[in-house]
Amino acid sequence: MPSSTSSSNSPPSSLPPPETLQSQDMERERKGCSFSIDSMSCLLPGSRSQRDHSRWLLSLLKQDPDRTFDKEARVFQSRNQRFFQGQRIALRYFEIRNLHGLEKKDADLLRLYTDEYLPIQVHESMAQPTLRNQSSDDQWKSWGPMFRSGRWIGCYMQTELAHGSNLSRLRTTATLDLETDQWIIHTPEPSAGKCWIGGSGMTATHGIVMANLVIRQRSYGMHPFLVPLRDLETHRLLPGRSILEMGCKYGAPAMDNGYIRFDNVRVPRTHLLQRFQTVDERGNYVERNSQSKVMIRGTMTLVRVGLCEIAAHHASRATVIAIRYATVRRQGSSKTPPASLEPQIIDYPSVQSRLFTALAASYALTFASQDLRKIYQVMIDELESEGRSRLLPIVHGISSTLKAVCTNESLSVVERCRRSMGGHGYSQAAGFDFERNQPNAGIIYEGENTMLLAGPAANFLVKQFGEIRNQASPGGMLVPPVAQLACLAVAGEELKFQGLEESDLLDHGNQLDILAHRVSRLVGELSELRSSSGPRPSSSPESDVVKDHMDSSLATRASRAFGQYLIAQSFVDLVSSLRSRPRQLSERIGAEITQPMIESLSRLCSIYALENCILSDLGDFTEDSYLSSKQISKIRSASARTLAGLRRDALGLAESFDHDDWYLCSPLGSSDGRAYERMIDWMKLEPLNLQGEEGGRDENGVMKGYRQGVGRLIRGETIPFDLEAEQRRREKEGKVGLGSKL
Amino acid sequence: MPSSTSSSNSPPSSLPPPETLQSQDMERERKGCSFSIDSMSCLLPGSRSQRDHSRWLLSLLKQDPDRTFDKEARVFQSRNQRFFQGQRIALRYFEIRNLHGLEKKDADLLRLYTDEYLPIQVHESMAQPTLRNQSSDDQWKSWGPMFRSGRWIGCYMQTELAHGSNLSRLRTTATLDLETDQWIIHTPEPSAGKCWIGGSGMTATHGIVMANLVIRQRSYGMHPFLVPLRDLETHRLLPGRSILEMGCKYGAPAMDNGYIRFDNVRVPRTHLLQRFQTVDERGNYVERNSQSKVMIRGTMTLVRVGLCEIAAHHASRATVIAIRYATVRRQGSSKTPPASLEPQIIDYPSVQSRLFTALAASYALTFASQDLRKIYQVMIDELESEGRSRLLPIVHGISSTLKAVCTNESLSVVERCRRSMGGHGYSQAAGFDFERNQPNAGIIYEGENTMLLAGPAANFLVKQFGEIRNQASPGGMLVPPVAQLACLAVAGEELKFQGLEESDLLDHGNQLDILAHRVSRLVGELSELRSSSGPRPSSSPESDVVKDHMDSSLATRASRAFGQYLIAQSFVDLVSSLRSRPRQLSERIGAEITQPMIESLSRLCSIYALENCILSDLGDFTEDSYLSSKQISKIRSASARTLAGLRRDALGLAESFDHDDWYLCSPLGSSDGRAYERMIDWMKLEPLNLQGEEGGRDENGVMKGYRQGVGRLIRGETIPFDLEAEQRRREKEGKVGLGSKL
Repeated sequence: MPSSTSSSNSPPSSLPPPETLQSQDMERERKGCSFSIDSMSCLLPGSRSQRDHSRWLLSLLKQDPDRTFDKEARVFQSRNQRFFQGQRIALRYFEIRNLHGLEKKDADLLRLYTDEYLPIQVHESMAQPTLRNQSSDDQWKSWGPMFRSGRWIGCYMQTELAHGSNLSRLRTTATLDLETDQWIIHTPEPSAGKCWIGGSGMTATHGIVMANLVIRQRSYGMHPFLVPLRDLETHRLLPGRSILEMGCKYGAPAMDNGYIRFDNVRVPRTHLLQRFQTVDERGNYVERNSQSKVMIRGTMTLVRVGLCEIAAHHASRATVIAIRYATVRRQGSSKTPPASLEPQIIDYPSVQSRLFTALAASYALTFASQDLRKIYQVMIDELESEGRSRLLPIVHGISSTLKAVCTNESLSVVERCRRSMGGHGYSQAAGFDFERNQPNAGIIYEGENTMLLAGPAANFLVKQFGEIRNQASPGGMLVPPVAQLACLAVAGEELKFQGLEESDLLDHGNQLDILAHRVSRLVGELSELRSSSGPRPSSSPESDVVKDHMDSSLATRASRAFGQYLIAQSFVDLVSSLRSRPRQLSERIGAEITQPMIESLSRLCSIYALENCILSDLGDFTEDSYLSSKQISKIRSASARTLAGLRRDALGLAESFDHDDWYLCSPLGSSDGRAYERMIDWMKLEPLNLQGEEGGRDENGVMKGYRQGVGRLIRGETIPFDLEAEQRRREKEGKVGLGSKL
Repeated sequence: MPSSTSSSNSPPSSLPPPETLQSQDMERERKGCSFSIDSMSCLLPGSRSQRDHSRWLLSLLKQDPDRTFDKEARVFQSRNQRFFQGQRIALRYFEIRNLHGLEKKDADLLRLYTDEYLPIQVHESMAQPTLRNQSSDDQWKSWGPMFRSGRWIGCYMQTELAHGSNLSRLRTTATLDLETDQWIIHTPEPSAGKCWIGGSGMTATHGIVMANLVIRQRSYGMHPFLVPLRDLETHRLLPGRSILEMGCKYGAPAMDNGYIRFDNVRVPRTHLLQRFQTVDERGNYVERNSQSKVMIRGTMTLVRVGLCEIAAHHASRATVIAIRYATVRRQGSSKTPPASLEPQIIDYPSVQSRLFTALAASYALTFASQDLRKIYQVMIDELESEGRSRLLPIVHGISSTLKAVCTNESLSVVERCRRSMGGHGYSQAAGFDFERNQPNAGIIYEGENTMLLAGPAANFLVKQFGEIRNQASPGGMLVPPVAQLACLAVAGEELKFQGLEESDLLDHGNQLDILAHRVSRLVGELSELRSSSGPRPSSSPESDVVKDHMDSSLATRASRAFGQYLIAQSFVDLVSSLRSRPRQLSERIGAEITQPMIESLSRLCSIYALENCILSDLGDFTEDSYLSSKQISKIRSASARTLAGLRRDALGLAESFDHDDWYLCSPLGSSDGRAYERMIDWMKLEPLNLQGEEGGRDENGVMKGYRQGVGRLIRGETIPFDLEAEQRRREKEGKVGLGSKL
């Protein structure tokens, strides 16, 4: 018991132990939420049946009798162990997919839920679709069932060690040998070896090889060939193939990315995928079906649609972990009176501004990727019914932009959430191992984001805006994204934002206007810069370099601005629909849409616009004086008030993403809030704490090898410490000058 | 040979293979550098002897006959393997340190060069200094030699599982038992266990335990106690201690962070560290030596000084890897004519703006941390000679600010460099394994950066500025940092920047003025916000929350602005000194300072100010209309021109940091530029490619366990694929609705 002497403090242990508060904190927050978490969890994926279907898919993994998909121990495994566990997961994945006859979209989700880049990822997501799209009907008839069943496991071989995005410079060749009626697949030098080929290092039986097609010394450019890699009985490499697993990476330990060289490997002439061209036995190259290439171009954007959905998924996953931890972690501020509890860290403004913007991004990315999929589907329907779609260039441009902006934002959200957990965010007990897999890889593949934004995304914008502006009236363009582009293209003409009150800044229409102005202004400047190019006699090499830099910077900012506008637009649309048709949507979703739900979503929408878009790139809005100092100050106070308003619903909003504890596998972010107890239990799994062969300790609990290691130092069996003697020696040798100067 | 048919392209293989160009590219760049890399490598650390001394220290590791410190295979190791290799490194480190009688600063550098967080890191950097500072002379006499020699290995036990930065809320107690004349060290509940204690999990023999000192139920607050943990003969845990290794982390695999509970552990009364207080056998608590506590406060800042130096070190290390890779990587742009070579990626504006800002940051952080160490030394000298120093609060404030700003910038540079390498940056062949160790941990410890910036750093600024502004004349304050603060405090009064030409923006004085204005403006606003606080009757809880948010945001921006100003100031000072006294400094440095060297440094300095500080936080400079649209446009063109001007020297500037190939251990960033060949060689080390017990393949080169794994799928021995049958079944069960809707 504390004494009452004035100079002493009460022993802090008179307060309840922190672990006893955590479950209470969690329950209290849930009860305090202004809406039904169950209803919001139906709204987020679009419907109750959707949510329940996802739960059912997850249960197929969670309830696996062999516990193949349990991942509690995963982070403690070596790369080798993790790779071989990945093999077991891959096999079981196929068994489940085959047993339940899962369609592509379900199978994609099932793989996502395995939470590991599997050696069969590329087989499912790229090799199989490519084979289907580029094979002739006869080829697909004979090869398709093998690929679909998993009897053949494919990989997609395009990138070379020295060549990535510049397709035309790949150096692998496929030369027709007219005598034997075979293609000779060849790697001319080591740097032309196929590289980063997912699934090829240890697993795949077949590769779809992109190679320069050569007939009679004439080159026809890159074409896909089906090339067997490994024997179907023994799994040994077939002659002429040499493959190295590429070695450890930043993440993705279960994926066997491979590096492959072909030494004059021969495949039958019919192994050229022949949907778009045939080569006959006399070496005649004939193009065909060129009209259906359009369809392929359309389906190619599907990968980017999926990447946006996955970006939203990982952002929300990080957010629920971090918000739960911030709910149960109490850490003292100087404002707290000595005898009271320390505050929950979620009550700190700096934590709120990090986590509530993460929450806003998670919702925004979710809705934006749903809209992207809808537009994609409209395009595919048009292509299938009419053989063409005016949406094709639009969906290409939008999906390129959103892929880069969504994956960038997702990674930054994930990292922000991890860091918000302070010291414990550095422990794998936080449950952020996934960050090194998809979030870090997704910013590079399917177009490296920096290149995507500065290149194709910006080119699309400049072209579209030019076309729309040159039209007297954008008549007939009723499809939403085109109409949006038209709005954007004229938005730049407003030179000053007119709103002056906090309420003006909280109006979603105004928020969109501000974001639209930025897009339009930046695209306008970029167009002007580019149109001032061409052969000008006065242009010096130096001014060309300066111009290239200006172009790169403007293009990147314009594309990002456009992506953020699209994302905000989706969010605003959703909130408007809910406001105008709550009954109708409640029915469609299968859950009651209440006013508090809409208000909470509206707040998140404002945070996305004000914090994630405007305040984080403020220069973009002030450079041309579109926003004034006074307006910015209103934005800051409006945003602060909105963040504060979200406090009550934060946990509920995060938990509405319906991430399962088993899936999250985060001791610090578990739903019961017992972060400390769970972290201690988790530590006990660390091999260094275990005895036995794999463990780090001997039967006395002493670390293995102690006696031959630092034990020699502690027991005085090694070079003794004798600083004074040493200094005398060094002085004699004249070496002292060095040490004393440093 | 390519045919001349118009419809075909030349086979790209008519161009030289990429690998043959890489060494030539590297050599040509080096020759093209405008200055002597040798001279710059002497300037960077301050002198030729300094550089050579660092090389000598590194050679002690590099030439170790047992190759203890080689790290080529490190990234392929499991955590267990890496931990035990860390034990060997730790032992050998002690042997080398003892053999050569290395002083603290040399020993610190030697540990940095081991490139691994070692279990003895905290022993050297915290436990030993704390013991020295807080022990009485008698205690140090008897314990010091044991610690210094490594016969005792210490750890520093402060943080608890549920308590970090709020010292007063730690719950571990040390209660005096008057009968036995012993302290009883006790952990009241699991969440009060000491946590994250570096070196304690497996290694340390002693802990310095921070515990609440209690005598006769009266609490005296946190005090340090020396507590033996493990038996010095057997290394078994002593009774009453239970320790878990904390489990795997984001990085730092060789470090055994521990979680420790004490169950009424008894130590002699004399194990309280007694420099500042004694407790006699009757339980009388007597304070003493309180005046020398000031000295301790001073030396505590040394850790942060070191963290700034390390931040610069890792930034430069990442930069040289990325710039070398960008030099030898060629990747096509659409502008390249078909028959010519692809451009080096370092010629892309987007690559330059990422890498040259990384270069600028590396130089800027290097010079800033050198200045910080100088000021620190002045303060220590004053403390030692006068027992006090007017610099104490200044160095505290500055080192807190710079610790956060430098470690944040370092991590972002490292990550930017890694990502600039595109796909290959995701491979461990890039040599960025270190990123998960210090750069990611350093932003959390010694004050989590977000908290540091929003709290102590901002409080310091508000206080200092208030004091300086209230003084009629800041007379007598001649020490540079104080004078700077005084300049900063008045800089905000300039309401508009006056320069209009590119040359104005390239003037370092003007650059500092712009940065100074930002600091002053933000601190001014923060001070005003805070002074409007206090008990105001009208203040509602809601407006309090809004105000807290405004405070947190302003405080963070103000502190970062101040840190960036200090860094830029150091850089500008250096350039000015070189310009005004090149002869004198050439002599001091031991290398000729040439005009091109100075020009190159001046360019980097401009990039740091314009890109890293102004353009990346543009809103901070436009929010109050200090910079106009026209000026920003000039900043952009001035910066673009400067980036272009750095192109020629980029490799030389990066290599001047004198990072050794053996140390970098980066196949893709090696000095000979043979990135592709080295990456292939490196892949061969991957265990999955090896046969034998540790390897992933059997004697046929087939992955182990194939037959029981996916081999069953490929050979058709598992659940068959029968989509049609499955669909029929599901339709019957009425499940089809779910799948088709998703």
